[in-house]
Order: sequence, then C-alpha cells, then structure tokens
Amino acid sequence: MEFNWRDTYARQVQDIIEYSEAAYQRGLVSGTGGNISARCGEYIIITATNVPLRRVTPEKLILCSLDGSPLDAAPGERPSKETGFHAAVYRARPDVKWVAHLHPVYSIVWGLQGSELPLLTESARLKLGQVPIIPVGTPGSKELAEAVTTSVVKAGPKTRAFFMREHGILAVGATAADCYHTCELLEDSAKIAVLDRLFKA
Amino acid sequence: MEFNWRDTYARQVQDIIEYSEAAYQRGLVSGTGGNISARCGEYIIITATNVPLRRVTPEKLILCSLDGSPLDAAPGERPSKETGFHAAVYRARPDVKWVAHLHPVYSIVWGLQGSELPLLTESARLKLGQVPIIPVGTPGSKELAEAVTTSVVKAGPKTRAFFMREHGILAVGATAADCYHTCELLEDSAKIAVLDRLFKA
Amino acid sequence: MEFNWRDTYARQVQDIIEYSEAAYQRGLVSGTGGNISARCGEYIIITATNVPLRRVTPEKLILCSLDGSPLDAAPGERPSKETGFHAAVYRARPDVKWVAHLHPVYSIVWGLQGSELPLLTESARLKLGQVPIIPVGTPGSKELAEAVTTSVVKAGPKTRAFFMREHGILAVGATAADCYHTCELLEDSAKIAVLDRLFKA
Amino acid sequence: MEFNWRDTYARQVQDIIEYSEAAYQRGLVSGTGGNISARCGEYIIITATNVPLRRVTPEKLILCSLDGSPLDAAPGERPSKETGFHAAVYRARPDVKWVAHLHPVYSIVWGLQGSELPLLTESARLKLGQVPIIPVGTPGSKELAEAVTTSVVKAGPKTRAFFMREHGILAVGATAADCYHTCELLEDSAKIAVLDRLFKA
Repeated sequence: MEFNWRDTYARQVQDIIEYSEAAYQRGLVSGTGGNISARCGEYIIITATNVPLRRVTPEKLILCSLDGSPLDAAPGERPSKETGFHAAVYRARPDVKWVAHLHPVYSIVWGLQGSELPLLTESARLKLGQVPIIPVGTPGSKELAEAVTTSVVKAGPKTRAFFMREHGILAVGATAADCYHTCELLEDSAKIAVLDRLFKA
Repeated sequence: MEFNWRDTYARQVQDIIEYSEAAYQRGLVSGTGGNISARCGEYIIITATNVPLRRVTPEKLILCSLDGSPLDAAPGERPSKETGFHAAVYRARPDVKWVAHLHPVYSIVWGLQGSELPLLTESARLKLGQVPIIPVGTPGSKELAEAVTTSVVKAGPKTRAFFMREHGILAVGATAADCYHTCELLEDSAKIAVLDRLFKA
Repeated sequence: MEFNWRDTYARQVQDIIEYSEAAYQRGLVSGTGGNISARCGEYIIITATNVPLRRVTPEKLILCSLDGSPLDAAPGERPSKETGFHAAVYRARPDVKWVAHLHPVYSIVWGLQGSELPLLTESARLKLGQVPIIPVGTPGSKELAEAVTTSVVKAGPKTRAFFMREHGILAVGATAADCYHTCELLEDSAKIAVLDRLFKA
Repeated sequence: MEFNWRDTYARQVQDIIEYSEAAYQRGLVSGTGGNISARCGEYIIITATNVPLRRVTPEKLILCSLDGSPLDAAPGERPSKETGFHAAVYRARPDVKWVAHLHPVYSIVWGLQGSELPLLTESARLKLGQVPIIPVGTPGSKELAEAVTTSVVKAGPKTRAFFMREHGILAVGATAADCYHTCELLEDSAKIAVLDRLFKA
C-alpha cells in the first residue's frame, strides 16, 4: 500500500485504540475477545486477530477493503477473523462508520434465552430501541457474515445494537463515541433485565 | 453573557468535572447517561446534553437560569434535557446546592419493584433515610419536572435521595461531596436490598 | 500536642492513606463509610469522621489515646465516631497494630442472615478461620464498643475478622497489609458463600 | 547463585510483575492469594509466598529448579507454597512456559458444584475447551502436586485451564499473554454459566 493510511486516518486509529481500551477497562470484553473497526472512505480499519483490546497499537490495526480483504498490515499481523461480518455491516448500512463486537457477560446471558430484551428504562427506550438477536454461526464463517447481513438489513437503519447468540454483541454508530456508548447502555440494560427477572422469579 | 462564569465559579466547574468522572468510574452511570448540576448564586451550571460523564470539560458545561433556561454555552452545546427537573429541585429546596441524576443498575432494579427500600444497615439509617420513588415521566417533559417537584416538596428538607422509576436516581446535597456520597451509599444500599431479597427468597 | 506525631509515625500515616484508598478502589467501602486506624506506641491514629476513604490526607488523621480520646487534630476535624470500638480492640488485643472497619456489600448481606460463614475454600480455611458476628449496636455508642470487646475477647487471639451485623466488617492485623488483605479475603469468601447458596437453592 | 538471573530473564521478570498486577486489578485474585511462574530454560521463576499480586517486585521473585527447590531468593523470601504443583506442571507438559494459579470468585463457585463447565459461547468452545476439575488437596502438599500431575497428564496437551476444587483455577500457556487471557476467559465463562443456571432455575 503506497499511501500512509495510519497518518491519513490518524483520528480513527486513535479512536479505535482509545475505545478498545475503554471496552476492556469497563469489563465489556476480556482476554483477546472482541474487535472494533472504522469505515475510512473506501476502506475499513480493524483490530488484528488475537490482539487483546487492552493493548491495541497502530501496528495491531489492519487496512481492509469493503469486501473484507486485507490490503496492508504490519509483518505477521492478520485482520480479526470477524472482518467478514464487519465488512458486511458497512456494505448493508451506508450510514454506519463504526462497528464494535464485544463479549459482555450479562448481554451474553440474556442472549442465551432467546427472548426479546424488555426496554425497562427511559434510556433503553430512547437510545437503544429493539435489539434483534443474530442466530449462532461459526466465527469467521461466510454463514455468520450472511446471518449478520440478514439481521442488519431486516432491522433497518434505526437499529444500533444486536445480540449475537452464544457470542456477544454487535453495535454500530456514526461515531466511535456513539458506537461505544451503545455497548455500555446495552450491557447495563441486559444486566437490569437479568436481575429484574431473577428478582421477580 | 458578559461575565466569565467559568472563572467566577471555577470551584463548582472543577467539582462537576471531578464527580462526573468519579460517577462513571464507580459504575453509577454509563454511556451518555446522567447529569450533574450546581447552584451558583442566581444561576445553575449543568452538564451538556449527550456528553459522557467520563469526559466532561468546561466547554461541556452550560450556564442556566433558575427557571432552567440556557444563558450561555459553547457553540453547538445545549444543556441536559433534564435541566427542567434540576431547576425545579433548586427552586423547591433553597438548601440544595448540588443535584445529581445517575443511572446505577441496582437502584434501577429496586425502583422497578415499586416497594420502599428497607434500611438494612446503620449507614442507610444514619445517612440515607427514606428514599421516595418518583413516578415515571417522559425525559425532558414538563410533567416529569412537576412530578419531581411534587415528590421533593412532599419529602421535605431532610430527604437526600430519590428513586426515579424506570430511569435512575436523584440525589441532592449542600456540597458536591455530600451529593455524590449519597449516590454511592444509595447504590450500595439498593444492592444489599436486592441481594438480601434474592438470598432469602 | 508538642511532638510532631505525623512525622514520628510517618510510615503509619502513609499506610493508612494508601490502604484507605485501596479499600475504596476495591469496592470494600463507599461514600464516607469505613474507618482505619493504627496503633502507634501508646497512641492510636485514626481517620477523621466524615472523610471519604478515597481521599484521606495527613490532615484528616487524628491522634487519640488508647482510651479513644482525641489528643491532636487539624482545626475542625474530629476522629471517626467509631474510635471507641477501635480503641476497645487495641486494649483487648495487645498483638493488634491495625484495625479496619469497612462496609463491603457481600459481607453485609451474609451478616444479615446471622448464620456462620462456611469456609468453602483453602484460603478461607488457612488465612481466615471462623468469623464471629458482632451484634447490632448504635454507631458510636458505648454499647457497641462493649459488644465489640466481648466478641473480640471471646474469639481469642487467632481471630482476624468479624462481621458487624447490619453494619460491615472488622479486621485486625499486625501490619497494615495483613489487616487489609484479610478484608479482601473476607469479602471474596462472603461473595462465594452467597453465590453458592443462591446457586444451590 | 552466581549468574544474575533477574537480568538474564528480564523479560519474564517483567511479565510476571505485569500480569500479576493485571490479575489483581481484574479481580481474579485478592489479598495474598494466587501465584504466577515462568519456565526459564532449566529453571522456574515464581512469585514469593505471602506477596500480594498487586505488588510484586523483582525481589519478590524466587529462582527454583524444575523439581521445585529454591535456588536463589532475596533475604527472608521463600517461594510460593504452591511451587510444588507449578513444577509438576512444567515437568508433565514440556510445551508449557507459563503457569498461573488464581482465585476468581465465579470459577470457584462453579468448581464447588463439581459438574462440567458448559461451553456456552463461541469463545469458550474455540479458546478454552473442556476444563477438568482437580480434586481438593492441602495447599503445599505432595498429594496436591500429584493430583495436579494426574489431571494435567490425563487432560493431554491441548488443555489450557483447570478448576482446582475449593481453591481456584490453574492456567497454562506458551506465553504470559496466552496464560493470562485464558484466566480471564475462564472466569467470564464461569460467570456466564453460573448466571445462566440461576436465570433458568
């Protein structure tokens, strides 16, 4: 790749690093789980496979095309194995500039039940809305990317967050902050729903 | 606005920033939820709409009148949509200098039940007292501001904390520290009440 | 007080500040709850009343006699209202150099049940041992100090930790680290006991 | 010991310190619980007994032989009492370069039940696999080291994590990061399993 994309998209590079660390510190992901990407013109920048989000550096980011193919990477680095469904989201939703896939515990627990998330708070009703559940699919598979596309298209352009059953969550946004705040709000909303149901059982 | 209110009220500006970040770090709020304000003479200073409490800066604070109207703001910034009920609290309670509205999970879960919070600990009996529940109201609506006023007036001058049903909590204080510590104590007390009931079920 | 006790006991002053902040950061106390003291020769140094443990400074420490009377304090500062039972512990247990009283949530929830803590792990059996429950008493009262004394004397010199019913925990140690680590271990042990019982219910 | 092993193995020394602190900050261990070691050629470097993982320094690390005998230590320091089973793991698994023994709460609660951990998420299926349960044994005993050896050998070379019943977890890895990330993933997986079972009860 001739052009220096890490400089051209320095703001996105910095934001991926900042929000990746925030997601780890907030407990929304652990180990090497999760991946975050940004749309940069005709490209996608995404975190590398096997990088812990607490420790993303510019060298751990990969430039990809909108069909999900890697275009430039530091030696030995490959893009997240979930690049396929990130790319699918960007193609299906032109308004989306950021995609985050995280593994927060209460959202996963809620998603395992398969029932719709009740919107128990004003914040959930105002800023989250209905949260579709994307069915199970092998990580990195074409089938999973297609399941994501189907869910995203069906949900329409107002939907900001999805459960990925037995896997985690998917959030989209026009900015890094929007996308990340949706993740925090979804996890809090799932925790409230889980505790409320336990409490009333 | 001619006078430089961010300098005149530098202490309050600094305290709003500090306690906003503390509330986020302590898990009492997430995303762009919550808002904090201070009474400054005949004015109110309040956090902007859509600002995450982890990242408040002086530019993200708005000067308002005691009727809740914005008087001065950085370009593009508007006051929290809940400025109406903050202002209502300051008018109803001359002793109150600080108001915090946060979204802590266990307090929300308790509030969903609608029953009175049992004061299970010495700290809750000594420093918290009875915690009224403010009924549901559309965020930013006149009806919600009126419901807050009614509850605050009815509760009397010794009440420091309120549940806002399906929404969060409201705490008031004579200092930033008093107001913030009440939020921490209420969330711990709600967590103890939720766990105690689960435990004994 | 003629002698400069903050210099003479600089190590204890520094340790109280460090472990007070650690207790807050670890979630073992919130708001202005809790108090920590150290035996310094014929004296006790204890945190002031109404100081949040996250923000203890040398000026927020009070020199007291072993009968619990304040001997020296910065202007306007008074010792924790629980100085009485700290002093009672030092008189009853000559081996004790540190006393911590904290309000961790799972320990409080366990203590509310009034049954003995099961020692479910090797760490609890090895480093904690039996944890007596001190009955309820008004904070700051002579009755509470006497109840603490009775429990501490009855438990004997090997006991490191106590539940204070409807109030929190009490830990003692020969060093600041010993005393603080006992608090962390007790809270983890109480959390395991609460979850295990919920899980098996 | 003539050679300066803290310099020769500076990278491992630094990694033990870093991941020990990370384990504490993440809540995977508390007080003086837990111990971490690295294989360094024909030697093992392990954390000292009674050191809190939040505060490991080079002086708190001990050089041991592969049979678990201490070879070099700062004055007054002794190796973790669990050095025996760390050494047993290194002898049984030549591929293992790192061993971590931690005390995370949900893993302990799951282990108390004695039933197999369900692999409810893609991450657990992909990166964790089956998690054997090592039976109870007195800390520091030869019996416990033998029980660990038996479980590790029986589980085979693909197994990365074990429950230690009534004690904690054991994770192994080719790098410090692999070993540590397995600990984080196991605790999240155990938390999901505990909550899912409570939720469906």
